[in-house]
Amino acid sequence: MDYITIIGLIAGALTTASFFPQVLQIYRTKQTKDLSLSMFIILTIGIFLWLIYGILSKTLPVVMSNTIAFVFSSYIVIMKIKYG
Amino acid sequence: MDYITIIGLIAGALTTASFFPQVLQIYRTKQTKDLSLSMFIILTIGIFLWLIYGILSKTLPVVMSNTIAFVFSSYIVIMKIKYG
Repeated sequence: MDYITIIGLIAGALTTASFFPQVLQIYRTKQTKDLSLSMFIILTIGIFLWLIYGILSKTLPVVMSNTIAFVFSSYIVIMKIKYG
Repeated sequence: MDYITIIGLIAGALTTASFFPQVLQIYRTKQTKDLSLSMFIILTIGIFLWLIYGILSKTLPVVMSNTIAFVFSSYIVIMKIKYG
């Protein structure tokens, strides 16, 4: 595995992991008022398209990170709609 | 430009544009309580690494979208620290 792919994998791990503290905070506080629903809806659609892009262009870091990010981002959208 | 790159550009446009409603909401409300500081710090570092990855792998959609996303994400981190 070349060093460019390794940087991509670290980048993907970080952007994906970043959702986790937000998911945890929502789970703990049930508070989503200051989150923008538009942000997370557009982000979720964008992440889905990145996933398609990654599959078509066969770029492993893009596929891996966006699969998990899609799950987290969808969860935040659902919680935002639930808690308002 | 092939259709895979076009999908990547749309994906990049969406994930980048997604920050905009959140930036606007913070600007309007000055409220950041429900945002996770850890999320946006980790996200900003991750976006920076995606930018490096995009430059090294010469993938245009990755470079373009992550440059703008880096600015927006940094703004959210600064506002979160400012408004707490």
